Amino acid sequence: MTPDQFRALGYKLIDWIADYRETVEERRVMSNEAPGAVRAKLPPSPPEEPESFDAILADFERIVVPGVTHWNHPRFFAYFPSNTTLSAVLGDLLASGLGAQCMSWQTSPAGTELEEVVMDWLRQMLGLPDLFRGAIQDTSSGATLVAMLCARERSTKDARLAGGLQSCPAPLVVYVSDQAHSSVDKAIALAGIGRDQVRTIETDERYAIRVDRLRARLEEDVRAGNKPCAIVATIGTTATTAVDPLEPLRELAQRYGAWLHVDAAMAGIAMIAPECRAHWSGIEGVDSITVDPHKWLGTGMHCTAYYVRDPAYLTRVMSTQPSYLRTAADDKVTNFRDWGIPLGRRFRALKLWCLLREQGTSGLLGRIRRDLANAQWLSAQVANEPGWEVVAPVLFQTVCVRHVPEGLRTDAEIDAHNQSWADRINEDGRAYLTSTVVNGRRIVRVSIGAEPTELEHVAQLWDSMRATVARRP
Amino acid sequence: MTPDQFRALGYKLIDWIADYRETVEERRVMSNEAPGAVRAKLPPSPPEEPESFDAILADFERIVVPGVTHWNHPRFFAYFPSNTTLSAVLGDLLASGLGAQCMSWQTSPAGTELEEVVMDWLRQMLGLPDLFRGAIQDTSSGATLVAMLCARERSTKDARLAGGLQSCPAPLVVYVSDQAHSSVDKAIALAGIGRDQVRTIETDERYAIRVDRLRARLEEDVRAGNKPCAIVATIGTTATTAVDPLEPLRELAQRYGAWLHVDAAMAGIAMIAPECRAHWSGIEGVDSITVDPHKWLGTGMHCTAYYVRDPAYLTRVMSTQPSYLRTAADDKVTNFRDWGIPLGRRFRALKLWCLLREQGTSGLLGRIRRDLANAQWLSAQVANEPGWEVVAPVLFQTVCVRHVPEGLRTDAEIDAHNQSWADRINEDGRAYLTSTVVNGRRIVRVSIGAEPTELEHVAQLWDSMRATVARRP
Repeated sequence: MTPDQFRALGYKLIDWIADYRETVEERRVMSNEAPGAVRAKLPPSPPEEPESFDAILADFERIVVPGVTHWNHPRFFAYFPSNTTLSAVLGDLLASGLGAQCMSWQTSPAGTELEEVVMDWLRQMLGLPDLFRGAIQDTSSGATLVAMLCARERSTKDARLAGGLQSCPAPLVVYVSDQAHSSVDKAIALAGIGRDQVRTIETDERYAIRVDRLRARLEEDVRAGNKPCAIVATIGTTATTAVDPLEPLRELAQRYGAWLHVDAAMAGIAMIAPECRAHWSGIEGVDSITVDPHKWLGTGMHCTAYYVRDPAYLTRVMSTQPSYLRTAADDKVTNFRDWGIPLGRRFRALKLWCLLREQGTSGLLGRIRRDLANAQWLSAQVANEPGWEVVAPVLFQTVCVRHVPEGLRTDAEIDAHNQSWADRINEDGRAYLTSTVVNGRRIVRVSIGAEPTELEHVAQLWDSMRATVARRP
Repeated sequence: MTPDQFRALGYKLIDWIADYRETVEERRVMSNEAPGAVRAKLPPSPPEEPESFDAILADFERIVVPGVTHWNHPRFFAYFPSNTTLSAVLGDLLASGLGAQCMSWQTSPAGTELEEVVMDWLRQMLGLPDLFRGAIQDTSSGATLVAMLCARERSTKDARLAGGLQSCPAPLVVYVSDQAHSSVDKAIALAGIGRDQVRTIETDERYAIRVDRLRARLEEDVRAGNKPCAIVATIGTTATTAVDPLEPLRELAQRYGAWLHVDAAMAGIAMIAPECRAHWSGIEGVDSITVDPHKWLGTGMHCTAYYVRDPAYLTRVMSTQPSYLRTAADDKVTNFRDWGIPLGRRFRALKLWCLLREQGTSGLLGRIRRDLANAQWLSAQVANEPGWEVVAPVLFQTVCVRHVPEGLRTDAEIDAHNQSWADRINEDGRAYLTSTVVNGRRIVRVSIGAEPTELEHVAQLWDSMRATVARRP
């Protein structure tokens, strides 16, 4: 493809995206393609000869787009917001166009230094003290794995240098709440720590970790000769956006020499609003934090912000110094290849830079407050409607609900009814929301915060919810 | 930003990229910004109010671009090719525009099924047997970590389910050649295996692993009560693109119950050319393979193809099944969230699909054969020039050279001279190449394969090399 062909096609794609974003509301939110339907429309073998990009674009519209669930749709209320704002689309386009590989400072100095600057801008926006340093990681799953690996190495006095984890006699134990994200369990397992070494601590009526139970388990483990390795706190759990209390966790982590990692993947972005920061009071005392600008903030995948208080320890665990990667500048610069698992690094800071500048702190704050207010509005509607319940405190932008109609008696019937009305809304295509199980009961989560979601869309969802339960299948 | 503003700005960016690619040859290859220079031009705090995108673009040109090293420059000969073809730029733009999050089949069926199809297309193009199944990972570093974690779990009979690695008495050992990439050592360490449990096996005069030495170490370890966990073979080592012999490694891996992982990150793409496939003869017997379409092929970061012969084992190690991720389709579909470390997944298959179709097998084959031929051409020039040496077999697109001028006696002097002429070419900006140490001696690598690199550019480099050593500083 010549640059001139690229120019003509590029305009066409820009138009397609502009039209798509302008009209996305007319589409159904969740794709209703059957399993295998997309695959069946694609040839089983690659083309021998070059094809025209127009043919590719036609197939994109005919085959791919019907198989897409629209995460940037104003009635996307499933999982969590995963916004890709148009300014971030442009920033990421520049990254592709340059095609720079930013593994080391020298392989593109601007790749490293812009990342240092925007990670620090974001730190300031979140109200984090300046003792934290940040690097972009692919996902919070990856960042949490990095945290668990560092915790393991600190607990074992750098066992990787000799003997490995097998040489450490005292079993390492990690403490999480029963509301922690599945990626935390996965990270612990991948770090080589057994499932029976994970202490799943009960939560209270607000789904926050019970500090008394945690303390008791820590004491019990130490008596038994186990070694507390890490405590993982969540600010904004997946199911109900509950908040673990950092102040007492920090005290316990310090007393027992455990790493304190904070998973604020979704809700961390709320800290742009100063009125939310009480939710992570004590954050200055933790070892590591993960927050995802690719969720609510809007950079698009992949852009996880991983902050640590001791970058020297992070790079000690993650660095390698082969001769083919050494550069003359190494003593004077940051080499982000040593801040995580991957060596190769796309120029991801560009999209975050474009987004933060194009929206400004005030613009982002306005959007976050809009979403927080919309969640409060929906919560009030649900609470005031007979038969409906808000089943968890609404601390951020997620409202967890349940409909308990007259006539249904058993828990199983009520669970099935709630799964059913959510499924019917999703299948109908008007909106998309997802359910989960909390305390053994099925609940439906309304996760507000897609960039185009205004109050009217939340109101439309609420109308759909009431209408759907009224016409039982 | 409204869709209409996006349209106007998008055109401008498309034009910028087209112009950039058209004129990149006029730029110096390696950025000559001093450490801290880019950072010094950026404000220390984020903007309070929204800024115009035109201001951002102006800063992009003024601050960012001078700090970029141009990986898509025709005289980029450093590290390895990391191409972002214009068709992949467009494919990735569509992925950003859609903003789909493809963690589960249901969260965008086309995201999963297009990935299944293009991973299979690429498998066919590489001549891999159809017993392999592939998934896109972020980098080969990440994929190699996944391989080591699976190897560890297989060797310990799924220790993560109880007791973890600490419960396994026999020390796990992993075998790599002394030419393996640093990411392999890193992956082993992150898997919890100590540095003293890594057996670094000597290589022969072609820098391939010595099978006799490997066999002896395996026997010795088993006698000592250690447990062979994995053997990592490289097809195309980083320093000299050497090739480990897979047939005997496969026999040893089978006999000792070790996982056999193949790192073909850079050179695997050469297998599009059938005449190269003898280099990985025996590939059908390995457990896992990593090949990077974001290097020589041209998808841009991040797009690593990770192939395994037993996807059920991979997903057993990587899967989590929390209630909030379960969908009704789970039994009938692939959920790529269970094929690697990250949960969230960008729609990366789109850029690979666009690239494979726009170029076709014949187009890609032509480009790869051009690069192989250019490497042979340079190798012949160097070999025929007095004072110059080709220091390793040229199996793919990398030519390792050394200049040994008359008058320099000691190894240290010759090493310094070779570092010096490479540095002077880089600083001058005409080309960019990197050095490494092999067998204790400094060599310079000429890695050919940037998409715009034609024979004339290789000839220009060769002219520069001779001219540079002729004017000693």
